[in-house]
Amino acid sequence: MAQSQSNSRSADPSSADAQPLRVGVLGLGTVAQGVLDILNANAGLLAARTGHPVQCTAVASRRLRDDAQLHGAAFSDDLEALVADPELDLVVECIGGIEPARGLVAAALANGKPVVTANKALIAEHGKALEALARQHEVRLAYEAAVAGGIPVLNALTAGLSANTIDWLAGIINGTSNYILTAMAQGGQTFEQALAEAQALGYAEADPTFDVGGIDAAHKLAILAGLAFDTDFAFRDLPVEGIEAIAPEDIEYAERLGYVIKHVGLARRLPHGIDARVHPALLPRTSLLAQTDGVTNAVVVGGDAAGVTAFVGPGAGKLPTASAVVADIVAIARDCLPPRCVTANLPPVGIDAARCGYYLRLSCLDEPGVFATVATVLGEFDISIESVIQREQAVSRAAGPPQVPVVLITQAVQERELRRAVAKLSTLPAVVGAVRVIRVESLDAA
Amino acid sequence: MAQSQSNSRSADPSSADAQPLRVGVLGLGTVAQGVLDILNANAGLLAARTGHPVQCTAVASRRLRDDAQLHGAAFSDDLEALVADPELDLVVECIGGIEPARGLVAAALANGKPVVTANKALIAEHGKALEALARQHEVRLAYEAAVAGGIPVLNALTAGLSANTIDWLAGIINGTSNYILTAMAQGGQTFEQALAEAQALGYAEADPTFDVGGIDAAHKLAILAGLAFDTDFAFRDLPVEGIEAIAPEDIEYAERLGYVIKHVGLARRLPHGIDARVHPALLPRTSLLAQTDGVTNAVVVGGDAAGVTAFVGPGAGKLPTASAVVADIVAIARDCLPPRCVTANLPPVGIDAARCGYYLRLSCLDEPGVFATVATVLGEFDISIESVIQREQAVSRAAGPPQVPVVLITQAVQERELRRAVAKLSTLPAVVGAVRVIRVESLDAA
Repeated sequence: MAQSQSNSRSADPSSADAQPLRVGVLGLGTVAQGVLDILNANAGLLAARTGHPVQCTAVASRRLRDDAQLHGAAFSDDLEALVADPELDLVVECIGGIEPARGLVAAALANGKPVVTANKALIAEHGKALEALARQHEVRLAYEAAVAGGIPVLNALTAGLSANTIDWLAGIINGTSNYILTAMAQGGQTFEQALAEAQALGYAEADPTFDVGGIDAAHKLAILAGLAFDTDFAFRDLPVEGIEAIAPEDIEYAERLGYVIKHVGLARRLPHGIDARVHPALLPRTSLLAQTDGVTNAVVVGGDAAGVTAFVGPGAGKLPTASAVVADIVAIARDCLPPRCVTANLPPVGIDAARCGYYLRLSCLDEPGVFATVATVLGEFDISIESVIQREQAVSRAAGPPQVPVVLITQAVQERELRRAVAKLSTLPAVVGAVRVIRVESLDAA
Repeated sequence: MAQSQSNSRSADPSSADAQPLRVGVLGLGTVAQGVLDILNANAGLLAARTGHPVQCTAVASRRLRDDAQLHGAAFSDDLEALVADPELDLVVECIGGIEPARGLVAAALANGKPVVTANKALIAEHGKALEALARQHEVRLAYEAAVAGGIPVLNALTAGLSANTIDWLAGIINGTSNYILTAMAQGGQTFEQALAEAQALGYAEADPTFDVGGIDAAHKLAILAGLAFDTDFAFRDLPVEGIEAIAPEDIEYAERLGYVIKHVGLARRLPHGIDARVHPALLPRTSLLAQTDGVTNAVVVGGDAAGVTAFVGPGAGKLPTASAVVADIVAIARDCLPPRCVTANLPPVGIDAARCGYYLRLSCLDEPGVFATVATVLGEFDISIESVIQREQAVSRAAGPPQVPVVLITQAVQERELRRAVAKLSTLPAVVGAVRVIRVESLDAA
């Protein structure tokens, strides 16, 4: 095979023929400002690394920020004009959300311009169509910034680990949820208290549903799974649970059993599809993800050759996210962006096919033999108990008889069977109210 | 700027014009066998990801292993013939050591063949000359596997973090040393016991000097620093210390002070050069590197945009190392290997200019006021004490008067000053024997 050598030269931005790469930026929020700042601050380094000066020459946003630092770029409020501007070589989309971002990205691609975006919702929900459009017009679409902020994990999946059949991956990919769970575990706060603190610190939105409900993590997991398994991954089919129902006592019991409760996105290759899901999970205390605290993100990848590798860093923020955007600009300027492969058709297998351990917390009447009754029901469904928290003092209730908590962790079982067993447990006269169920994952041995 | 679009198509290895990439492998040790195994096991995936079948068609080694799995490659004992073979598109060097590897790699490059190597000594000591040769012949030289095995950290530095001015990096990059220190910390073993255990498990060579003396880590740090700071980094100028002198009591005192002793390679950008060094260091217990145990490797990178990111995984082994070799093959097949930039001339500043905290352990005569005397000497050199272990029971000696250990950690100070203070401490009548000095690094705030 003939080797093209276009990248082997020493980059020489000072040579007379080094035309600048002219970048247009859509939007002027925090991330867009970060992109402008990096292109300005690291101009010399970026020119050396790409062989061309990289200049933001145009910014379009509905509104000019009072404090905007344009570093010489022209400003306009005409978004449509920017994506059609023949003077631009590349478009960065920093608007967020679906429309008008989707239409503008599609227009830029159709105009033959490569596009870099940090928009996880857009890629998770419309990535397949946009990738097809990019291929049709022979330009690239890049979105490292859409997942895990400053951590170059998409690059790891598509380039650094390219020799591997990826078996599984798992990540803490929503900083808001992880901040809240960390505060609950370390500060003993309730979910509501920790959420209020996260909001006060700017780590959570006024309406936090998107983060604490798991949608944001699901967007990111869909993107990770698509790249890891060379497949088109349908975000709509992902089972998603948020952290709203995690109680302080669950965190405490988990700790006593040697676990930490984290909100994770995980995806495993099965023979007939991908077991992918987003939900709270008990993780062994010594695992890297269990030790990932606050707004830090981490993604752990299991490959058939590299083994278990992990990628850790800031999952959000102005400069970390902009770092990923600019890395994509550099990759496109070098013509070095790894190709997107879609070679497999691996559908999500659905939550019923999930297989893991389960944490169960039941409130039971304080009667002799109640634990034996619970264990017998589990046994009927061939579910073994891995560990159990010993009988505690009965909790007195204002109304009704005293109750005792029964807390246990099962060995690995398929979710379908577990749900049947829990349905039966709920019908027992000694079991009061709903059974609390949280999945347990031992990721290193996935 | 015109955008070349050679990578934007869907890879289609089944198309009639997809010529195979013919790979020749030099050597047939563990890593070479791993490369052959991955090219065989993941052939379909690699063809899809590169757009070409990737085939090892020739292996040359002085000796054919009895258990070798050649997967259809031709075997020869003529190493020189392989690097001149016109039927090969790319050469993988898995011999190790300097000669004959250096001469063969140079010959392959001069013959116009891209080269992939896992040879850290070769790249650390001769990388500059080999890179120049590769440029001259317009082919690529790739060596992801030379540092941190299966962790794609060179790719992170050159591609994923390409938007960043790298401020510093630090790593646990020698699995043997880390295994020994972990065994000493967790199992209470002496250095000699832990080394014997590592040798029995195959984690340490019969002659362990290269690993426990820090040379292997220094090779890797020189490569990391060169890429991180876009400079040619002279391995010979690196200050290197191994772990041979670490005593169990140092590990115990460090733990009582909130630290873990690890063998680290670190490099920091200073205005006039790079503060790079390889030595044991006390790291805060909660830091990611302090929690990296056994043969696992980890590299932490501080960038001006991404912030602190970390890369963790297996640092050695057949398949992890081969994973990195094959990723480089894929990158070259895609013509997607990030360019090597050398734009800065940042010389090592030398150990005298290092600035950090210091752990000092002195054996003192059990006399009143001995600690005050030590503190007074440090004060003369403007060295403040950060923390101290309270006076212990005197240790009775068979000969001579009873002694007490004095253990303290200083605030950050320049090494030159610290050495002067230690020289003066050694002259005190109350100080018996040598003062034990270990550097203290707080990497997250580097």
